[in-house]
Amino acid sequence: LKSAQDHPNKIKQKSHAPSPNKISKRIAVAMGADPADLVIKNVSWLDVFNGLWHVSDVAFFDGVIVGVGEQYDGRSVMNGSGLFLVPGFIDSHVHIESSMMTPHRFQEVVLPRGTTTAIWDPHEIANVKGLPGIDWALKEAATCTMDIFVMIPSCVPSTEAGMGLETSGAVLKAQDLEIYRNRDGVLGLAEMMNWPGLVNGNSEVIKKLHDFQGMVRDGHCPELSGKALNAYAAAGIHSCHESTTLGEAQEKLSKGIHVLVREGSCAKDASALLPLVTQRSAAQIGFCSDDRNPLDIEESGHIDCIVNMALRGGHDPIEVFRSASFAAAKIYGLNDRGAIAPGYLADVVLLKQDGNWKKGCEVVKVWKNGAEIDAQSFLRSPRESAPFLGRNINIPKNLLSTADLALKSSREGGVECRVIGVRPGQIVTDDVKARLACKDGLVQNDLAQDIIKIAVFERHHATGNHGVALVQGFGIKSGAIATSINHDCHNLIVTGSSDESMLWALQELLNIDGGIVVVSDDGRIERIKLSIGGLMTADAPKEISASLRRLKSLARSLGCVLDEPFLQLSFLALPVIPTLKITDRGLVDGRSFKITDVVHGAQN
Amino acid sequence: LKSAQDHPNKIKQKSHAPSPNKISKRIAVAMGADPADLVIKNVSWLDVFNGLWHVSDVAFFDGVIVGVGEQYDGRSVMNGSGLFLVPGFIDSHVHIESSMMTPHRFQEVVLPRGTTTAIWDPHEIANVKGLPGIDWALKEAATCTMDIFVMIPSCVPSTEAGMGLETSGAVLKAQDLEIYRNRDGVLGLAEMMNWPGLVNGNSEVIKKLHDFQGMVRDGHCPELSGKALNAYAAAGIHSCHESTTLGEAQEKLSKGIHVLVREGSCAKDASALLPLVTQRSAAQIGFCSDDRNPLDIEESGHIDCIVNMALRGGHDPIEVFRSASFAAAKIYGLNDRGAIAPGYLADVVLLKQDGNWKKGCEVVKVWKNGAEIDAQSFLRSPRESAPFLGRNINIPKNLLSTADLALKSSREGGVECRVIGVRPGQIVTDDVKARLACKDGLVQNDLAQDIIKIAVFERHHATGNHGVALVQGFGIKSGAIATSINHDCHNLIVTGSSDESMLWALQELLNIDGGIVVVSDDGRIERIKLSIGGLMTADAPKEISASLRRLKSLARSLGCVLDEPFLQLSFLALPVIPTLKITDRGLVDGRSFKITDVVHGAQN
Repeated sequence: LKSAQDHPNKIKQKSHAPSPNKISKRIAVAMGADPADLVIKNVSWLDVFNGLWHVSDVAFFDGVIVGVGEQYDGRSVMNGSGLFLVPGFIDSHVHIESSMMTPHRFQEVVLPRGTTTAIWDPHEIANVKGLPGIDWALKEAATCTMDIFVMIPSCVPSTEAGMGLETSGAVLKAQDLEIYRNRDGVLGLAEMMNWPGLVNGNSEVIKKLHDFQGMVRDGHCPELSGKALNAYAAAGIHSCHESTTLGEAQEKLSKGIHVLVREGSCAKDASALLPLVTQRSAAQIGFCSDDRNPLDIEESGHIDCIVNMALRGGHDPIEVFRSASFAAAKIYGLNDRGAIAPGYLADVVLLKQDGNWKKGCEVVKVWKNGAEIDAQSFLRSPRESAPFLGRNINIPKNLLSTADLALKSSREGGVECRVIGVRPGQIVTDDVKARLACKDGLVQNDLAQDIIKIAVFERHHATGNHGVALVQGFGIKSGAIATSINHDCHNLIVTGSSDESMLWALQELLNIDGGIVVVSDDGRIERIKLSIGGLMTADAPKEISASLRRLKSLARSLGCVLDEPFLQLSFLALPVIPTLKITDRGLVDGRSFKITDVVHGAQN
Repeated sequence: LKSAQDHPNKIKQKSHAPSPNKISKRIAVAMGADPADLVIKNVSWLDVFNGLWHVSDVAFFDGVIVGVGEQYDGRSVMNGSGLFLVPGFIDSHVHIESSMMTPHRFQEVVLPRGTTTAIWDPHEIANVKGLPGIDWALKEAATCTMDIFVMIPSCVPSTEAGMGLETSGAVLKAQDLEIYRNRDGVLGLAEMMNWPGLVNGNSEVIKKLHDFQGMVRDGHCPELSGKALNAYAAAGIHSCHESTTLGEAQEKLSKGIHVLVREGSCAKDASALLPLVTQRSAAQIGFCSDDRNPLDIEESGHIDCIVNMALRGGHDPIEVFRSASFAAAKIYGLNDRGAIAPGYLADVVLLKQDGNWKKGCEVVKVWKNGAEIDAQSFLRSPRESAPFLGRNINIPKNLLSTADLALKSSREGGVECRVIGVRPGQIVTDDVKARLACKDGLVQNDLAQDIIKIAVFERHHATGNHGVALVQGFGIKSGAIATSINHDCHNLIVTGSSDESMLWALQELLNIDGGIVVVSDDGRIERIKLSIGGLMTADAPKEISASLRRLKSLARSLGCVLDEPFLQLSFLALPVIPTLKITDRGLVDGRSFKITDVVHGAQN
C-alpha cells in the first residue's frame, strides 16, 4: 500500500471525479471480482446515516471506500476486531497560522490525530501579506496530504481601515476578493467579523456577501441575538464559531447558523456547547479549533481533544463522531466525505477504547484517501520549503531607540494613568486606573503594582507609527517579551520591565525578521524565528515545541505569571475586543472605538 | 401581497442570488427598520436544525423568510396562534406524467396540499418523444409557480435497445444526455434502473454516471443488496425509492443511498418504511410519490398523504416534517429551502391539528416564495397551453384489422398456453399455464377462465410491430380497454373480450391520438384524450378526474374486477418486472429476458 505522503507536493486529484475506467474498477472491487487495496476485517464501523454501529469488513480501493457490510479480500488485510472505525475528523474553522506551523507541518501533527480535512481561514497571513498571502495559502493547501480548503478572509483588517485605529499589512476590498470565488480549493467567504457593518448595510460588506453567494459564508458574531442575528442570517451567513453559552448557540442554530463548537488555546467553549449536540442536531453542529497553539495540539490534541471531552462528558459516541465529521462535511458541501460508505473518500480513523466510551478513546491508525498516515514518514521525507514571501519586518533598525518607548507627562510627581488590565486566560481586558511616578517628564514603570510598559510598532509600511501604554498582570520583574504575532495586524508588540530590555527584545525581533523573543536583564535570550510572515515557520513541530518551552521557561524566570504569555500578549492589540487595547496608533478604548490617552492630562 | 401565480409563465428568479440592494433591504426588514411583506404572529414554527418547535412571529420579505423568534410589523399580518408552520414539502422523486397532468396542472393540485418543490424525472415523455420531450419538460418546469427540478432520464428505454425486447420512441445514449448537465433546473441523472448493466460495468452506464459526477445520481434498485449494492453505491448512486421492506431500506441508507419513502398509486411503501425515520435518520430520508394518479392525489393527497400516514402511525411530527422537507433539500443540494430560518425561501405550510398529531393534520395555507397559494386563482387565470410536441401515434389507421389480433396455432382442439396472470394491486405478474380452445387455426378467448387477449402495437416509428398474448384476471366479459400509457415505451396496449371490441378501442385511440379508451359491446364509449405524448393533457384537473371516473365506471360495467384497470394495464408492458409481460415484440419472460411463445408448439 503506497503511502499518501510519498508525494506531499503533488496536487491532489479530485478523488470524487474518477474516470470511467476508475469507476469500472471500483465496481469490480465492490463486487468482489478484484481484490481491494486494504480490508479492515470485523471492525465496528459507524453508519452516520442511520446513526448505528455495524460490525463487518470495510474495503478500500483507489482512495475510496468500496465495500461495507460484506466479507472482502484485499492485497492488504488487517484485523479490526474490537476496534472502531469512524470518518476522518474535520476541523471546520482554523487559522493554521496560530499553530505557528506551515500547513505542511500542521498536517504532520493533526493527521495522526485523525483530522483528515481542515477549513482554513488564512486571515493572519492575509493581514500581513495581503493577496500574495492568500495565494501562498492556496498553493500550500493544494499540496498537502490532508485536505485543506480555504475560506477567503472577509475582514482584513479587523476594523474598517477608515477608522484609523490600527495599521495592517493589507486592506482587502470586495473587488480584491471576488476573483477568488472560483479558485480551486476555495469554499467561500471566511468569518464576517464586521457584523456591525453588516447590520448597518455597509456596502463593502454587502458586496462581499453578494460576491460569494451560492458558497458558504462563515460568521463570527459573539453574543449576537434577536433581530440583529436574524439580519445576519438573512444576509446569508451560514455558520458561527463564537458562541460561548448554550442558549446563544441554540438561538443561532435555530436561525440556520450552524454552530461550530470551538476548543482553542484561549477560547474554550466545548464544555458549554456540547449539550447542544443531540440525536436531532448532531449533523448540524461541527467541531473546530480556530486558534490552537502547537503545545496544546501536542499535549491535548486537536479535534480529537473535543471528541474526548465529549465522550468523557457522557455524550453518545454516535452523536460525537457525526458532529466531528459528517456535520462539517454537510455544512461545507463536501459531499465526498464524512461517512463510511461505498463511494466516500477513505478518510477514516481507527479507534480503540477501554470497554467504555466514557473513558475516551485513542487513535490507533488514520487513513487519508485510503493511505495510512505514518507520522514517522513525515519526518523521514524531505518537506518542500514554503515559498519565500519576502521580508516580514519593514522597520529601519537604527531608527529604534528608547526614546520611542517614552511615556511623557508634564506633571512631575504622581500622575493618573489608564492601564490595560490583563485577565489570565481571557482576551477581554480591564480598564485599570493607577497612579504612577513621573520623573523628568517621563512616566515610570511600577513593578510593585505590576505595571509595566507595553508598545506596538507598525512593521509593514515603515510608517514609524508606534503606540506606548501600560499593562498590569504579566508579573514581569526583569527583561522583556516581544513578538510579531498579534491579532489581527501583526505589528510588533513588546512589554518588559525596562525600556532597555524592551528595546533589546525588539532589535532581536528585527534581527530574526519576526517571531518571538524573550530577553532577561542578565543577558539570557530565547527566540523562535517565524520566517513566514513573522507568524509561521517550516521547522519541524518538535523543534517549534522545544523552542516554545524554552521561551516560556525564560518568561517564567522573568517573573511572568501567565500560563500563556505570548498568546495573551498577541491579543492585546486586537481593538475589537473590549476593554483597553494597544495598537500602533496608541491606546484604544474597545467600547468607544477611539484612541484614548494613557496619562490623564498628558502631553505625549 | 401579490400572488405568485399571477405570472405563471415568468421564468422564476434565482431567489437564492439576490442583488446587493436586495440583500440590504432584507437586512433592514430583519432589523425591524422596514416592515415585512407578511408576518404570521405567534405561530408554532418548526426549527429543523435543533429539532424543536418554537412559538413566535415569522416574517417574510422579498420571497424569503427574514425573521423568526422576534416580534415584527408587516404590511400584511395574520394570526398564527394555535397553528403550526413547517417548511414546504418536497416530492423527492416524481414522474409528473403519471398524474396525466402537465406540470402547470400538476402544481394546481399539489401546491395547495403543501408540496412547494418537486424533483421530476420526465422519463415517460422522454421515452415517447426523446430529447424534445426533455426540452419540453425543462421549459414547462421553468415556468411553473412551484419549483420543479429535473433529473435527466438515464434509462430510455428501460431495457437495453440491443436486447430487442421492445420498441421505444427514443433511445437516449450517454452522449445525448451529457449536454443537459449544465442546463438550468437540472439537478442530476435520474433513476439508474439498469443496475445489472452497472454492476457488469456496461460502458454506456458508466459513461452516464461519469458525465453527471458532482451532481445527484438517483438510483432504482429493488431488492439489491450485499456486494452488488456496494458496487451500485461505489459508482456514485446517491438515492433509491424502490425499497419495500425496512431491512432493505436500512441497508441502503447505511451504504449512503438515501432512502426516498414512496407512496404511489400502485407502489405503496410508506407503512413498511416509515419506521426507518428516527431522530438520527430523519434528515437523510425523503418522501416521494413516484407514480401517483390524479384520483389518488385528489382523494388522499400527495406528500401530505405520507405526512398524515406517518402522524397517524404515531411518528413524532418533528421527524415527519424534517423528512418531508429538510431531508430532500439536503439530499438534492437545495440549500435555499427546507427550513424556516432567515435567508431561506418562504416556502411554508401552515397546518392545523386537533390537539393531537395522531389524528393527522390539515393544510390551512401554503406560501411559495412568500406568495400565498390560492387554489381558486389557478382556475380563474388562463394557463399557457403546453407547446405542441407533434402527433403521438404513428400508425396508418387503415392498416389495423382483426387479423393483427390473431393468435395462431396449427393444433386444432385444445392447446397449452402461457397466460399473463394479473395480481390485483401489484405490478408483478404470474406465469399461468392454461388449456384453451383452438378453432380454424386460431386460439380462442375463454371468458369462463377469465382469459382474454392482450396486444401491444408499436406506435412511434410505424414499424408495424405488434405482439399478441393472453391475460387472466381483468374479469372483462364484454368490450375492451386501450391506452397509450404503458411503461416505459408507451406503445398502444389493448385488452378485451373480442377482437372486434379491441379493434374498435384501438381505432378510437388512433382517432384521439392517444389517451385512454373504454368501449362496450353495446356501443357505449368513454375516452380521455392525452394530447401531450399520449400521456398528459393540459385540461383542468377536475375534468381529468371526471373523465377517469367515467372510464372506470364503464370498465366496471364490462365486468372488470380491478380497482385500477388502466394502471394495471399500463404496467403489463414493462419487461423488467417479472414474470410475464407483453411488448410490441411479443410475450416476454421477465426472468430470462427473452421473447417466448404464447402457444406451446405454436406456429404464429
